[in-house]
Amino acid sequence: MKVQLVSVTPNAEKVIEKAARTCYMSHGKITKCSHKEFIKRLIGAGHLSVLEHALATFSLEGVSRALTHQLVRHRLCSYSQQSQRYVREDNFQWVVPPDIKEDKNLKKEYDECMKYLKDRYSSFLQNSVKAEDARFILPNACCTSIVFSANFRQLRHIIALRGSSKAQWEIRELFIKITELMKKIAPSCFYDFKVDYEKRIVKKDV
Amino acid sequence: MKVQLVSVTPNAEKVIEKAARTCYMSHGKITKCSHKEFIKRLIGAGHLSVLEHALATFSLEGVSRALTHQLVRHRLCSYSQQSQRYVREDNFQWVVPPDIKEDKNLKKEYDECMKYLKDRYSSFLQNSVKAEDARFILPNACCTSIVFSANFRQLRHIIALRGSSKAQWEIRELFIKITELMKKIAPSCFYDFKVDYEKRIVKKDV
Amino acid sequence: MKVQLVSVTPNAEKVIEKAARTCYMSHGKITKCSHKEFIKRLIGAGHLSVLEHALATFSLEGVSRALTHQLVRHRLCSYSQQSQRYVREDNFQWVVPPDIKEDKNLKKEYDECMKYLKDRYSSFLQNSVKAEDARFILPNACCTSIVFSANFRQLRHIIALRGSSKAQWEIRELFIKITELMKKIAPSCFYDFKVDYEKRIVKKDV
Amino acid sequence: MKVQLVSVTPNAEKVIEKAARTCYMSHGKITKCSHKEFIKRLIGAGHLSVLEHALATFSLEGVSRALTHQLVRHRLCSYSQQSQRYVREDNFQWVVPPDIKEDKNLKKEYDECMKYLKDRYSSFLQNSVKAEDARFILPNACCTSIVFSANFRQLRHIIALRGSSKAQWEIRELFIKITELMKKIAPSCFYDFKVDYEKRIVKKDV
Repeated sequence: MKVQLVSVTPNAEKVIEKAARTCYMSHGKITKCSHKEFIKRLIGAGHLSVLEHALATFSLEGVSRALTHQLVRHRLCSYSQQSQRYVREDNFQWVVPPDIKEDKNLKKEYDECMKYLKDRYSSFLQNSVKAEDARFILPNACCTSIVFSANFRQLRHIIALRGSSKAQWEIRELFIKITELMKKIAPSCFYDFKVDYEKRIVKKDV
Repeated sequence: MKVQLVSVTPNAEKVIEKAARTCYMSHGKITKCSHKEFIKRLIGAGHLSVLEHALATFSLEGVSRALTHQLVRHRLCSYSQQSQRYVREDNFQWVVPPDIKEDKNLKKEYDECMKYLKDRYSSFLQNSVKAEDARFILPNACCTSIVFSANFRQLRHIIALRGSSKAQWEIRELFIKITELMKKIAPSCFYDFKVDYEKRIVKKDV
Repeated sequence: MKVQLVSVTPNAEKVIEKAARTCYMSHGKITKCSHKEFIKRLIGAGHLSVLEHALATFSLEGVSRALTHQLVRHRLCSYSQQSQRYVREDNFQWVVPPDIKEDKNLKKEYDECMKYLKDRYSSFLQNSVKAEDARFILPNACCTSIVFSANFRQLRHIIALRGSSKAQWEIRELFIKITELMKKIAPSCFYDFKVDYEKRIVKKDV
Repeated sequence: MKVQLVSVTPNAEKVIEKAARTCYMSHGKITKCSHKEFIKRLIGAGHLSVLEHALATFSLEGVSRALTHQLVRHRLCSYSQQSQRYVREDNFQWVVPPDIKEDKNLKKEYDECMKYLKDRYSSFLQNSVKAEDARFILPNACCTSIVFSANFRQLRHIIALRGSSKAQWEIRELFIKITELMKKIAPSCFYDFKVDYEKRIVKKDV
């Protein structure tokens, strides 16, 4: 899994502060560091809409279609995903679940299965089956690339859901990485999220 | 593919008329049939937001995960889909693309592939692999069930996109069925869509 | 303020149950009353997206433009509002805040102010000022009509915000009425909201 | 009216190109200028979702509440507006419609009306009426400040609606300014919009 931050609102926390202070016309209180406590107070008070004025765009590579089928269910984000109708998958890579990777026999069986599917897929294409039909045999494990954008409010919402212990391991790993990135870029906006590296989850202060 | 209308706003066109007439306070013009021309005029003028006051809910069975990965990208709808994390797929059914179905050899190869995956999947489960990991080998062809709701404005938008000649065959078949259903339920709201049964597409009057 | 339920998904709780059981393929557990505990459990677990399959449409009359400017900020709903560009307001009614109504002198001053504005507005129209320009002098108090639709998930969200003690009195009164209506129509979907008639707020069980 | 661009996605057109090329895995075609024709082709083909990966944030001052009541109806944007519940309006400014400004008598009557309202408002506050109640007499003309964010796809949609000859003059002036700003920042994303300075509208190539 490769996660890259493609773009983020410059000076995001200052933009958010400016927007939020418009509600109260308290721009006079802006100092170099005033956004830090101000944003934490807004979050504490549930005044989250102001976090929508900052956007982050991520590029993901080497994630499974199982992951993206979960990700794209978050409807307040924007997605551009590698198409299996227009892009041939002759050489598809695949994601291996950790519990399978750890077991030599399971791993062998799993990889054989993937190679078998790759052969069948290529064979179909050679027999003039269209890519959009041949892809019907491609597995959830198949690697895909996707660019997605989310505002900071929405990112907080998704991190809370997909970083939790109930979430599936692959999407949890993704949002651990995203939490790390966002805590560097906008520490006040994500101050209450913490990665638990032992349990591989994201915790939220209540 | 089984498409069932689970629910729809009762007297949808009258609800839409009432809402739209609130903008102009022209409720006095309501007669038994006044909604018919009125709604067509609203659509012609691009005043589409009033169509959002009516909702339709569909239940789909026997569609592929390839179809639902496209469907759920329409973000202004609501979805509840059969989970591959919580529901075991020991006995999964699969969708066969028509171009493959028509070719005896391709069909045989395709079905063998599906049976092979079903065996591998069952074998994984028997070896204590969790359903959420075993599903990584399941193909796009795998049948799924989904309930989805869309308001009439959004339905018009999706029919136009997914019923067109550029759309993929399976989702096109779905929206041919949905067009037929909606034209019966709310003929004025979908008056400008027509199914071309020869080309298997939905056409829109301009 | 007149609040009328224009339309609601028939058998809403059964529709929601059917949709939610699709996720787990547990339709076999449906009985006449099974939705009651099931929906409460879904809400308790935060699985709220299933509540989006039911829609309610309300017609409001005699509310102020101050109220609607707050209401329309809820972006996951649909709105059709009486236009001040297309509908003349020669005879506009107005909302009086309770604290002003209770004070004889303030009430007199307030009503004089409204009558003054009505005269000025009419005078502008007689001088060939367009309605869309004359409305610039109309007050926030001006009564308006609006039809709005929200799904049950969104209604729960808005009730929690606008029924709370922090909310403004007029919109709070609106959502007290809406809570009463929804508790009758879909008791399981709104079971944890209770109207406190002394404090005139909506409370939520935690 | 003062319109300020608070923030915009850096290298917005390159971000959009990168996202869109992910769909086709055609990153190899990226050159210094490749985004220009590529984005125009995407727009021509109606592949607009890729424009959602760029966000612009504007700060507006000196616009009327009549304008913002229209603006906030665009639900796929984010808003932070000066509150009339929390900010006192003792010294409110007001917008004057051009047709009134041009007529000496109308202008006089209009300004008197505004001064009258300002006096009444101050008088209410002095009599311990809360700001949230006193504001009921404030007019649509009352100046307000608002920060709003919209992605480029949504901006195109709003410019087309609110820049057209059917739109109201004040919001049309706003989107003339925004069109000018966006054509400088992202010329390929807004290439088909042109300001007609004689008619004071925004035209769109078809």
